[in-house]
Amino acid sequence: MDKFLQVAIEEAKKGLAEGGIPIGSVLVIDGEIVGRGHNQRVQKGSTVLHAEMDCFENSGRLKAADYRRATLYSTLSPCDMCSGTALLYGIPKIVVGENHTFCGPEEYVRSRGVEVQVVDNAECRQLMESFIRENPKLWNEDIGE
Amino acid sequence: MDKFLQVAIEEAKKGLAEGGIPIGSVLVIDGEIVGRGHNQRVQKGSTVLHAEMDCFENSGRLKAADYRRATLYSTLSPCDMCSGTALLYGIPKIVVGENHTFCGPEEYVRSRGVEVQVVDNAECRQLMESFIRENPKLWNEDIGE
Repeated sequence: MDKFLQVAIEEAKKGLAEGGIPIGSVLVIDGEIVGRGHNQRVQKGSTVLHAEMDCFENSGRLKAADYRRATLYSTLSPCDMCSGTALLYGIPKIVVGENHTFCGPEEYVRSRGVEVQVVDNAECRQLMESFIRENPKLWNEDIGE
Repeated sequence: MDKFLQVAIEEAKKGLAEGGIPIGSVLVIDGEIVGRGHNQRVQKGSTVLHAEMDCFENSGRLKAADYRRATLYSTLSPCDMCSGTALLYGIPKIVVGENHTFCGPEEYVRSRGVEVQVVDNAECRQLMESFIRENPKLWNEDIGE
């Protein structure tokens, strides 16, 4: 498996171990991880720190030229917020672990020129399926439902 | 002037006084302010806390039904990230101070069923025009350019 997706999965598991929602994300530039993160709704009471947002935040203030060579990895299909953040910073490529348990605006993101690659990874899907089964209310809150 | 836009302008000025980017935001539900915020790029070194994001974060974990009665005020047209967050949470109405100095994906947001009302407020515009003139590099960083 892609080693960067593997790190995103490690982040998701770290979140789960903390009692949080198991979604992880990694930002990669020129083959190096510049930031990683996981969903912080439970841990920080955050409504904006989805995994991808936590990852962008942990990556710090980068140059536009750096974002434009970056790949964003997420264990789950990015929602409207996280997709919008990738668009804001001109991220050219997003690698998605799975989009069965939730699917963000992938077609719109592609229409804006971003390559969205869906890996359909079994572990990413299993993590979300069991989390949603056990925590439907928390999960719905995270996706605004 | 709309009293809630006035509070958003106060937030923008608070940000400016802190050495930050002068954009402010307020979230209103049933005629009451439930959260307010301003851009935190400089103050917190944040790449995700645009004014609207800071406002969502400060509003705390609300119910989906509450977000769906909310109006988001921003002194400046929301970017892809902030627009995406409004879409995630199903915010039905956004009031925008001005969209001359920057214009986010307003038409796309409208196509998703959101009412976007642009007030064209002179003070909002003046705040951004002088900030951008004096801090072009910082401003470009904030919009990913």
